[in-house]
Amino acid sequence: MKLRCPICGRTYEKPVQRCSCGEPVEFELFEGEPYIGKGVWERFWDFWPVEPVLEFSLGEGDTPLVKSRLGGEFGVRLYLKNETVNPTWSFKDRGTFLAMSYALKAGYKTVGTVSTGNMAASVSAYASRFGLKAKILVSESAGDEKLKAVSVYGGEVIRVLGDYGRLYFESLKLGEKLGVYFMNSDNPFRIEGYKGIAFEIAEELTPDYVLIPTSSGGLFRGVAKGFLELYENGLIDGLPKLIAVQAEGCSPICRAFKEGKAKIERFENPKTIAKAIANPYPPSGNAVLKLLREFGWGCVSVSDNEIRKAQEMLAREGLFVQPASATGIAALEKLDLPEGVKVVSILTGSGLRTLKDAPAGEITECPLETLKDCLRST
Amino acid sequence: MKLRCPICGRTYEKPVQRCSCGEPVEFELFEGEPYIGKGVWERFWDFWPVEPVLEFSLGEGDTPLVKSRLGGEFGVRLYLKNETVNPTWSFKDRGTFLAMSYALKAGYKTVGTVSTGNMAASVSAYASRFGLKAKILVSESAGDEKLKAVSVYGGEVIRVLGDYGRLYFESLKLGEKLGVYFMNSDNPFRIEGYKGIAFEIAEELTPDYVLIPTSSGGLFRGVAKGFLELYENGLIDGLPKLIAVQAEGCSPICRAFKEGKAKIERFENPKTIAKAIANPYPPSGNAVLKLLREFGWGCVSVSDNEIRKAQEMLAREGLFVQPASATGIAALEKLDLPEGVKVVSILTGSGLRTLKDAPAGEITECPLETLKDCLRST
Repeated sequence: MKLRCPICGRTYEKPVQRCSCGEPVEFELFEGEPYIGKGVWERFWDFWPVEPVLEFSLGEGDTPLVKSRLGGEFGVRLYLKNETVNPTWSFKDRGTFLAMSYALKAGYKTVGTVSTGNMAASVSAYASRFGLKAKILVSESAGDEKLKAVSVYGGEVIRVLGDYGRLYFESLKLGEKLGVYFMNSDNPFRIEGYKGIAFEIAEELTPDYVLIPTSSGGLFRGVAKGFLELYENGLIDGLPKLIAVQAEGCSPICRAFKEGKAKIERFENPKTIAKAIANPYPPSGNAVLKLLREFGWGCVSVSDNEIRKAQEMLAREGLFVQPASATGIAALEKLDLPEGVKVVSILTGSGLRTLKDAPAGEITECPLETLKDCLRST
Repeated sequence: MKLRCPICGRTYEKPVQRCSCGEPVEFELFEGEPYIGKGVWERFWDFWPVEPVLEFSLGEGDTPLVKSRLGGEFGVRLYLKNETVNPTWSFKDRGTFLAMSYALKAGYKTVGTVSTGNMAASVSAYASRFGLKAKILVSESAGDEKLKAVSVYGGEVIRVLGDYGRLYFESLKLGEKLGVYFMNSDNPFRIEGYKGIAFEIAEELTPDYVLIPTSSGGLFRGVAKGFLELYENGLIDGLPKLIAVQAEGCSPICRAFKEGKAKIERFENPKTIAKAIANPYPPSGNAVLKLLREFGWGCVSVSDNEIRKAQEMLAREGLFVQPASATGIAALEKLDLPEGVKVVSILTGSGLRTLKDAPAGEITECPLETLKDCLRST
């Protein structure tokens, strides 16, 4: 087991969570080959940093890749990787399952995370499934209704009064002292779990572009590492171009990328409807920035109006996603990609979790007696 | 294409929706064999009454079968068929996709359904995906927030003022006149789509019992027909015992079964938290009753308290379902099954759709300064 800091290059023999330079660490590239198997965990058995505890899997991963007719509007061949059909209805389950497998094997009795949304629900659910206790640190302002979808799984939900932004590092520090394994947004095992998205895409097609809603940078790094491992192992002939997509109202990575800076800076006063990707100081921001430059990839930011429009376009094709999950489609409008290229956009989480922000359609009334007329009208 | 009334035996050469005797019709048993393929539609290609329009599939079906440790508490081997990870997060998508495939091929431009919940969302979504218009007839009392998750897909949501109970037959009658294809709860194509649940279960194990939340009877009949076709085609050695599960507050089928009646009667003043299975006069009630008697199967009703407890037990294993979807586990408590038998319980829909009814867990507060103590406490 060897981890490396992608920024300063320092290596570690144990699964630390961060490099001493403050940046994230990651497992070195794995070598291996795919097998025949029902689940993604089995088919890519060689590529995980810890043996997946399949007995506690909830069937995460192996999500559909749906061909979208929206591609026609943009002159590309568009495919949607629908991560909203994971066990707790977001991509987080892939990372949570793998990080939980490690926590169990390493002997932890309690795990934790810092999140109010998808990741909170995911960690709460899998902790119960694995028979571990969970401490879910949520922000002061999180609504009771939203937290119900987290606490229902049995994890202890803790509203932290104070600067929520400090919690990422604070939780790792305290967790290490107290023997609580925090699996935050870019935890090294979590990142490895997200590789499955790249593996599954590659089983079906070789994309030219992959659009990735980007907040902490964990998902982006996971998908990138997945494609890199496929490439380095000779399983695909070339790397797709990965595009990090952020909301204009909170786009620290895109801003630093555009301005040619080596490091991201905190994005002051973040404001966007895409709350799931509204991290103002992403812990993997510099690592993502480095990947974008190294491989000539891209970063695109989209406005709330563009996000709303994309969310509606997706719903009108049968896929109801969170605002954050629609950013990839919103980006398509701006990217002006070459005619006919193959594009995959990752739909990260279910719209049911953010029902309040959903674009409402038309609702009419009709007395039973005149139903015939109501059905006839178009 | 041949359909038959399971009650009076009359046959039809065209896909009518109901027999002239008022009962549902169903396709005769299909003959065939399974193939190797990625999706359930391809693997069981011989068994569908219409060619599935795979180009418009959203990846419905092929849901995980999750081994549950709850089995230990009841002395059985328990597996959960997690239908909450379908594209609109309920089992309805399987039936909707197949019925929509028929509607498209038959040349309909508009489809409809009578539902306020899972089926409404499913038909709204797939109609948009297939490029058809949808008329979704909902009850007067349905809340705006709940309907958002339906209208977002683009279907026209119509609040019908008047006796909602009359709408099932009224919509079929008007639909036929106006050329609107209504795919209600026990539409014959819908039933065929649900067979996939049985097929997928049989690919993994041979259950002794299958627990099925039962409202209109459509899901029950579909799963039953799936196992019957497997059996008649020599693909399984014996039939599992199917158990229809209803809520005590609305259990017309269990009541008629227990009282030895040949026909169900309307259940007056239905009242249960399991709203997705609260049909007081199920259109396939008599057909289900006949199946139960013919094969020596069973019907169990469970109280709201038992449902709540089961919902919590499932959430504490990582699966957050609607109250209706927890009835199978609630039934386990009452069934007193033989030691060690293999039981599959079908989890029909996501708990996110009924968040208000979810059992809330503990939420505490903690100032950032004392976080260490909050993390330490158990």
